[in-house]
Amino acid sequence: MNVLIIGGAGMIGRKLVERLAADGEIGGREIDALTLHDVVPALIPEGAKFPVDVQEGDLAVAGEASRLIEQRPDIVFHLAAIVSGEAEQDFEKGYRVNLDGTRLLLDAIRLEPDYCPRLVFTSSIAVFGMPFPDAIYDDFHTTPLTSYGTQKAICELLLSDYTRRGLLDGVGIRLPTICVRPGKPNKAASGFFSNIIREPLAGQEATLPVSEDVLHWHASPRAAVGFLTHAASLDSEQIGARRNLTMPGVAVTVGEQIAALRKIAGDNVVSRIRHQHDQAIIKMVDGWPKNFNPVRSKSLGFVVESSFEEIIRVHVEDELGGEIQA
Amino acid sequence: MNVLIIGGAGMIGRKLVERLAADGEIGGREIDALTLHDVVPALIPEGAKFPVDVQEGDLAVAGEASRLIEQRPDIVFHLAAIVSGEAEQDFEKGYRVNLDGTRLLLDAIRLEPDYCPRLVFTSSIAVFGMPFPDAIYDDFHTTPLTSYGTQKAICELLLSDYTRRGLLDGVGIRLPTICVRPGKPNKAASGFFSNIIREPLAGQEATLPVSEDVLHWHASPRAAVGFLTHAASLDSEQIGARRNLTMPGVAVTVGEQIAALRKIAGDNVVSRIRHQHDQAIIKMVDGWPKNFNPVRSKSLGFVVESSFEEIIRVHVEDELGGEIQA
Repeated sequence: MNVLIIGGAGMIGRKLVERLAADGEIGGREIDALTLHDVVPALIPEGAKFPVDVQEGDLAVAGEASRLIEQRPDIVFHLAAIVSGEAEQDFEKGYRVNLDGTRLLLDAIRLEPDYCPRLVFTSSIAVFGMPFPDAIYDDFHTTPLTSYGTQKAICELLLSDYTRRGLLDGVGIRLPTICVRPGKPNKAASGFFSNIIREPLAGQEATLPVSEDVLHWHASPRAAVGFLTHAASLDSEQIGARRNLTMPGVAVTVGEQIAALRKIAGDNVVSRIRHQHDQAIIKMVDGWPKNFNPVRSKSLGFVVESSFEEIIRVHVEDELGGEIQA
Repeated sequence: MNVLIIGGAGMIGRKLVERLAADGEIGGREIDALTLHDVVPALIPEGAKFPVDVQEGDLAVAGEASRLIEQRPDIVFHLAAIVSGEAEQDFEKGYRVNLDGTRLLLDAIRLEPDYCPRLVFTSSIAVFGMPFPDAIYDDFHTTPLTSYGTQKAICELLLSDYTRRGLLDGVGIRLPTICVRPGKPNKAASGFFSNIIREPLAGQEATLPVSEDVLHWHASPRAAVGFLTHAASLDSEQIGARRNLTMPGVAVTVGEQIAALRKIAGDNVVSRIRHQHDQAIIKMVDGWPKNFNPVRSKSLGFVVESSFEEIIRVHVEDELGGEIQA
């Protein structure tokens, strides 16, 4: 089986590549070859038993998608996107990459004869816009309040229609906020959810810009990779006509995040969190989805951590080799 | 005030043009000039007190939208579309006209400096796909089961995002099935809802391909024109961030349609309906939305007939000069 990952150099892409290299298979089907595509060169994973081809390019350039699809991968993971902040700041770039790039990919698959690969598309809870019910249910409408969310919601619709017409076999998965995000703090408005855990665990200070009663929806990077491989191996009939699924997550307040950190790492680690309100971030976060009731994805076997403590333990295991700077 | 109607030669377009010619204004603002655009020449209405410019062209051709927008119309009605059956049959044509054409229009408006017109976009209840609740509520998700519905749902998302960013001032209205549709019977699968009323009233036979317990959602052409002019004059603040509205309608079974016809026109007229089941149409109609609870549009002042009898009376008044072939 041949696998293509578009956006293979991003954080989730790298984690997925490591998993595929370790497992050598997806859903019991052996991987024969892996192609990694991104605007920057993706890293070749250690220990892979299959050849890995790294390709550099821009999916939104005409001909790029067709070139990738000519190899007729059995599974395509489409993770590439301009992130929320940049898509909001640069209107044309966001639409070009997130919408036109995806459409070029779908059309390249459509135009390849006798070919119907599984396409796993990473959507986002940003397809939802306030006001919300207490827990967003599966039938709740998508009324995004960002261009990024709009682009993701449009791609979801395309994915469903192309699948319905038998042009491809798509599954869209709406990822929760990924926490604890590894690496350095970034400027994403949602970054603090990870920063307040990752930095104190590494002996560094972190700033909390919102109050502790802010509720949010989380999954670990490890869980996100599990969503992707599970989506890649799901039975198409079982999914039915509605191809876009809100992934399970862990709904916790910032206060509960901090309590979990205290339980795992102690008061000294927690004392490295500095409370400093930022009105701009408070306002943005207020419009984000807080909690879901994702009945369909759970019934289809998608699994997530059962608590925020477990999310922190995953981070300590996967990123810190079990070590905490207490 | 300058007004542009794209799709001005279609059935709803013609009705809207007649209304504007008769009223001379929209929401109390006088019309100074009207431009009618379509792929075929639209008819110039009788008795208009303002100049009417008829333009022929294809909105999906690059440059066409910009040329129309150069005139900086204050209100743009975008009614142009490839209909459901054709969009399903011809994948590329449907996406080219219904999606790319609309996007070219939105972008032409976006790129015109210091310009933010009211854009009224006709969407459709085809944005919804089964399974449905008993009455589809305003927060129900859009999971279309046709390419036409997909294209409309995507345009709704674009309309909201462009509006949110202040690039235009959009309102999307999801029209019910228009009944009684004037003119000759056409091959649309939904045509029978009108045929079984219009043809018997004109002394002709009509075929009913489904059973009498089929429930459906209707509004008259006159009501549809009322939706359009009301949408054109609504206060933007009052609409809020969710720019796409399910219009009110009359939910009746085919049996109730026939009972209303009997009450207005008598047994002899009703006897012109031939019952002849068509399994293909039965199956298609089964997947269509049947009933809605459109709280938002009603609260914003959109109004529809209060019964199917009233819908028939509107047809007799507007199309038959009050005459029935009894």
